[in-house]
Amino acid sequence: MNLKEVGRVHSPYKKKGDAPFQGRMEDIEARIEILEEFAPALKDIEDFSHLFVLYWAHEAKRETLQNRTPYDQDPQARHGVFATRTPNRPNPINLGIVDLVRREGNVLVVRGLDAFDQSVVVDIKPYSGKVDAISQASSRRAHEKKED
Amino acid sequence: MNLKEVGRVHSPYKKKGDAPFQGRMEDIEARIEILEEFAPALKDIEDFSHLFVLYWAHEAKRETLQNRTPYDQDPQARHGVFATRTPNRPNPINLGIVDLVRREGNVLVVRGLDAFDQSVVVDIKPYSGKVDAISQASSRRAHEKKED
Repeated sequence: MNLKEVGRVHSPYKKKGDAPFQGRMEDIEARIEILEEFAPALKDIEDFSHLFVLYWAHEAKRETLQNRTPYDQDPQARHGVFATRTPNRPNPINLGIVDLVRREGNVLVVRGLDAFDQSVVVDIKPYSGKVDAISQASSRRAHEKKED
Repeated sequence: MNLKEVGRVHSPYKKKGDAPFQGRMEDIEARIEILEEFAPALKDIEDFSHLFVLYWAHEAKRETLQNRTPYDQDPQARHGVFATRTPNRPNPINLGIVDLVRREGNVLVVRGLDAFDQSVVVDIKPYSGKVDAISQASSRRAHEKKED
């Protein structure tokens, strides 16, 4: 299973420490530049207010199976990586949910993406408020809001 | 960018036509069997009521950039694949949001997954009702509820 680059992120987050812990809390705009060859795949994307963005975490440690997480009630607790949103995981695909601010040709201007500059985008999907918004979803983890 | 299998779906959907158009509308249970070597990555996953499941659409047509979609107001309209949830896309990673019913060792019993039996799972992430549920997300597409 091989992934190909379909685009790149242009964001103000240039290095570790720049990115907010939770991108959706921030109002910073980023640009997703889709490669020309894939631009036809953007047709009608302006129909949607929000998008899923899948991008590759190229610096991730793929052998990590358990991790501590920031803001955990117990800072020593290790959780399985499938129970966290850390980029360190066997297949380091990050999932962001963004507001689509506008489209400029093959560039999507988005808000709420905490990806590093030059992150490789592998997929974009529309987010449906009717199907994907599960407000009753719950977590027993302390500080869940910040933690994942 | 290479993906590795972390698990398999066991579901009642054996072939095209079996799967519902929108998995989340259905109450059918499926099982996600995580490979033993990745089982430690499941630690504390029971903390979450809902999960994102990323799985590979091995029969997808990766060269497809525009597609018709079922239930479209205009059945002849072609949309860019990034503006649909079709598995046919440059990187055929399907994204499901499921209810975690229970964990049985390295098996997750889930509800709302419309994956075919034997689908290869590449990642699992916790879903946060506080961060990921954007009920105001909107679509201008007709029949949006069924369509994506």
